[in-house]
Amino acid sequence: MGLKLYGLHVSTCTARVLAVIEELGLEYELVPLDMNAGEHKRLPYIEKNPFGLIPALEDGDLVLFESRVITRYLVRKYGKESGLLREESPADAIAIDQWIEVEAQQFNVPISSIFYQHLVIPLFYGGTTDLKVVAAEVEKLGKVLDVYEAWLSKTKFLAGDFYSLADLHHLPYVHYLFTTTPHGSLILSRPHVKAWWDAVASRPASKKVIAGLTLSL
Amino acid sequence: MGLKLYGLHVSTCTARVLAVIEELGLEYELVPLDMNAGEHKRLPYIEKNPFGLIPALEDGDLVLFESRVITRYLVRKYGKESGLLREESPADAIAIDQWIEVEAQQFNVPISSIFYQHLVIPLFYGGTTDLKVVAAEVEKLGKVLDVYEAWLSKTKFLAGDFYSLADLHHLPYVHYLFTTTPHGSLILSRPHVKAWWDAVASRPASKKVIAGLTLSL
Repeated sequence: MGLKLYGLHVSTCTARVLAVIEELGLEYELVPLDMNAGEHKRLPYIEKNPFGLIPALEDGDLVLFESRVITRYLVRKYGKESGLLREESPADAIAIDQWIEVEAQQFNVPISSIFYQHLVIPLFYGGTTDLKVVAAEVEKLGKVLDVYEAWLSKTKFLAGDFYSLADLHHLPYVHYLFTTTPHGSLILSRPHVKAWWDAVASRPASKKVIAGLTLSL
Repeated sequence: MGLKLYGLHVSTCTARVLAVIEELGLEYELVPLDMNAGEHKRLPYIEKNPFGLIPALEDGDLVLFESRVITRYLVRKYGKESGLLREESPADAIAIDQWIEVEAQQFNVPISSIFYQHLVIPLFYGGTTDLKVVAAEVEKLGKVLDVYEAWLSKTKFLAGDFYSLADLHHLPYVHYLFTTTPHGSLILSRPHVKAWWDAVASRPASKKVIAGLTLSL
């Protein structure tokens, strides 16, 4: 098969792709980059991802970047029967598309900012968490999760009563919310969101990915 | 056909959907919301988009939100032959997917922040543009557009030598960069980006959409 994934297991975007790889049981090689040395910002890597971000995937002659594009590609090419995209059912496929975009546009923005403030700034830049920024983002994320709470009172997963790529895409950041920030209560205080997260995190593939998400304060 | 689009033509996300509607020549009804009165934040609208954001699309019994999901849906259902997604060609379709995500994750973040600072804060909240924030976002956007410049020296449009949804999704914010901020030079100073924008903006469908993007300082 020869899938090569350039990135780091601890990175949220790399882990998003690894979660699909584990769900589908694909063989792959993880090629780490020395990000402290800026290896992701220079040749030859920036020929794979010109934006100098991880991850990038090589599958034979094809090179792809952006984690949410890579996950869709892998399911379409190697895992149609997994049900992660359900493209054989137009109504399910649209619902999955809808909630993939909600994760990317509504959920990812505040949660990545909270993670950046609590973990990335102190750990990688020697700076101080800006608690005013965190408070504003926690409020935004809470409002987003209020919508999830109401939604998940009707179906077990985001796009319906089936696990899909839309749920999977949340895995890395929800896990890190518990281990790198003091804001895990955003999940735990909402019973339907908590039950959803328990169902996501307890999957065998999720457990393997979570085991490698070792960043912590 | 009975497409109902809830939103405002001047809104970037509504205009993104209108650009596809115009490209495909679809009949539709635009249902405006009184956002000053908070109509988008309460029933009945939040049954269409629980996040209280515009736009939302109704197509018979189907209700969809998130502009980039609606555009894909419309092309798949009503405009396969338009070439905007080229799903009959897997290599082209992946390239389009790739650059749709680049717009959403790399381009949209800084440009929407610049627009928010220069237009939304003064016009809708009576506040003052934070020029430090703007400077940081202009730097980020410049780096993103440096990648576009190198990329567009090889192909006429982002996913290849054909116009696609990936190009179209940029339309509202690039236009507003010229009319609501002093940073149009970010486009004009990069010759391949400028030529690309000229090609995007001069399409008959784009002109119709631009005519309604009337916000200005």
